[in-house]
Amino acid sequence: MRLERYGHGGDLWTATEAYGRPVEEWLDYSSNMNPWGPPDVVGHLVKEHWRDIARYPDPAVRRLRSKLSEAYRIPAESILVGNGAAELIDLAVRVLQPEETVLARPSFSEYEEAAHKAGRRVRSVFLSRDQRFELTDVKDLVGHGGTVFLGHPNNPTGRLIPIPVLDELRESGTRMILDEAFMDFLPDESEFSYIRRASESMHIQVIRSMTKFYAIPGIRLGFMVAHPDLIRRLQEVQTQWSVNFLAQLIGEAVLDEHAYADRTRAWLTEERSWLVSELGKIGLTVFPSDVNFLLVALPEELRDWNVRRLQQAMAERGIMIRDASLFEGLDPSYFRLAIRLRQDNERLLKALKECLS
Amino acid sequence: MRLERYGHGGDLWTATEAYGRPVEEWLDYSSNMNPWGPPDVVGHLVKEHWRDIARYPDPAVRRLRSKLSEAYRIPAESILVGNGAAELIDLAVRVLQPEETVLARPSFSEYEEAAHKAGRRVRSVFLSRDQRFELTDVKDLVGHGGTVFLGHPNNPTGRLIPIPVLDELRESGTRMILDEAFMDFLPDESEFSYIRRASESMHIQVIRSMTKFYAIPGIRLGFMVAHPDLIRRLQEVQTQWSVNFLAQLIGEAVLDEHAYADRTRAWLTEERSWLVSELGKIGLTVFPSDVNFLLVALPEELRDWNVRRLQQAMAERGIMIRDASLFEGLDPSYFRLAIRLRQDNERLLKALKECLS
Repeated sequence: MRLERYGHGGDLWTATEAYGRPVEEWLDYSSNMNPWGPPDVVGHLVKEHWRDIARYPDPAVRRLRSKLSEAYRIPAESILVGNGAAELIDLAVRVLQPEETVLARPSFSEYEEAAHKAGRRVRSVFLSRDQRFELTDVKDLVGHGGTVFLGHPNNPTGRLIPIPVLDELRESGTRMILDEAFMDFLPDESEFSYIRRASESMHIQVIRSMTKFYAIPGIRLGFMVAHPDLIRRLQEVQTQWSVNFLAQLIGEAVLDEHAYADRTRAWLTEERSWLVSELGKIGLTVFPSDVNFLLVALPEELRDWNVRRLQQAMAERGIMIRDASLFEGLDPSYFRLAIRLRQDNERLLKALKECLS
Repeated sequence: MRLERYGHGGDLWTATEAYGRPVEEWLDYSSNMNPWGPPDVVGHLVKEHWRDIARYPDPAVRRLRSKLSEAYRIPAESILVGNGAAELIDLAVRVLQPEETVLARPSFSEYEEAAHKAGRRVRSVFLSRDQRFELTDVKDLVGHGGTVFLGHPNNPTGRLIPIPVLDELRESGTRMILDEAFMDFLPDESEFSYIRRASESMHIQVIRSMTKFYAIPGIRLGFMVAHPDLIRRLQEVQTQWSVNFLAQLIGEAVLDEHAYADRTRAWLTEERSWLVSELGKIGLTVFPSDVNFLLVALPEELRDWNVRRLQQAMAERGIMIRDASLFEGLDPSYFRLAIRLRQDNERLLKALKECLS
């Protein structure tokens, strides 16, 4: 059974069906969560406030929007909070109804899914392996009244788009939606994030997830930044009470977790460089990443292997890896790995060595 | 400020903005929650499993669907779980794209909202006060390729639709969506619910909320029952991971809370009859209700009062009531009250007497 049966990594329920190993016993390298787990404050809040789920959540998400507004120094009116980034991606396509949705492949599958659900056409531009799948040129993206969806950093590569390239796209007047789901893993995101630009522009939307960095995907939380006029249009169509009470409460609290954030970023810089080097020693090709996951390719000399076979061999050892050949534009030699804590990474490396030797 | 600024009762955040009283100090008669509060098992689960929000929720909601399937003796393939009933109402209209959405007014505002969001036309049929706003005749509802949205029981009246009337509608082949959000408050819902019919029919959908009966609206949870082919179409369009992990976990557990359910139903039968009688003694007109809320009208002799003035006078006493004149088809003499525990109901009655004397 394909572990990405529902189109994504981290589906421990499907893995459990396929291999009979309980959900909590998998070592999950297939979804890109902060391995430090949710900050302790999440536990305190949930224990203290669970009874408050007896009330409706604030339909306007007033307190969290106000905290985000302070944290990012943008107007609260330019922020829409959603039931995960996934809801906001769907909502954007449904409301904007772009003539075509332009994707720079390989890229996150939800952009295409959202376009298909809304009955919109998709046009793909393929990034080249010679350029390490980095976006260096915008000329194929612009024109045709399209809306360009870009991961910034991109998924599955984890690579930021160079700011001059983004600026060129912006200056062309092309409508763009930037998915900054992993931006908070950067040591200084303010150099790279397009959030402030989005808050003032009718052509740029930024979508953020709060669940990767704070390791809280189970509660669903994301937000979008755009011009207030556009936010208002989207809000009118959004489902009532879409963001549950605990997600709002947790979102407010984690924004104050500065020590957690600093620790995560310091750990990541060090661990990524170590893991990249160790993977290289096994003979795997690792693409440069700015965040907490790595695109990896099996080299020519291991071509009797492919990712499906490797995924199965790793699953038998209790480890889930992401089949990256499901990203259009990549062949069956590619997989994606989250970066986890050292002890887990050592177990990963050992299992990979066993499989590939 | 209108307390229903976002279209619904129970918006304690808007009430707090308007009157400066903290969220937890309001006595809320404007939203129709079970006043016994969430079952204790909810607290135990949340305390024990909060760390599990570090994983994605099951995208296919397998365990909860399987429990619902057992509880209602319908196939799991005919069940779609949603981020509250609100998501499922939106989704149904968006996918079915009915030529017109037919409403029997007064009725819950989300049906019309959903139609407008999806750009569909709405046709209203007005129920008559002489018939106590009960649906007795279906001839105005059928035809024109319309989809009929009905509350069963209806909101704001709390009244069930007579089964012969529903059967007549069904036999006409009209597509119908029944909102059974309050059905679980009935002592024996199996006599009235259309769930089993919906699971086999291409023309009937039933939407259920689990949050009113178990007093958990803050976590967002609802489900839809329809023919598996229709469920599949809706599922393809639904947002990925729409139902958060804790909602799934809580939903599985509350289905086993039989003592809680029995206690709620026994209390309601008694308390409703007492409250109806006491409201009558103040001179208010109370319409018959089968569930946990009451539609109430100010009588002729109190016509210097209207609901806006009453809502404000009650809010100054810390009590929120629902302005029912916002339900199209009702004038400013109508309001809606939840039924709460005796002590609260006594406080409500005292405040109403003070205001209206």
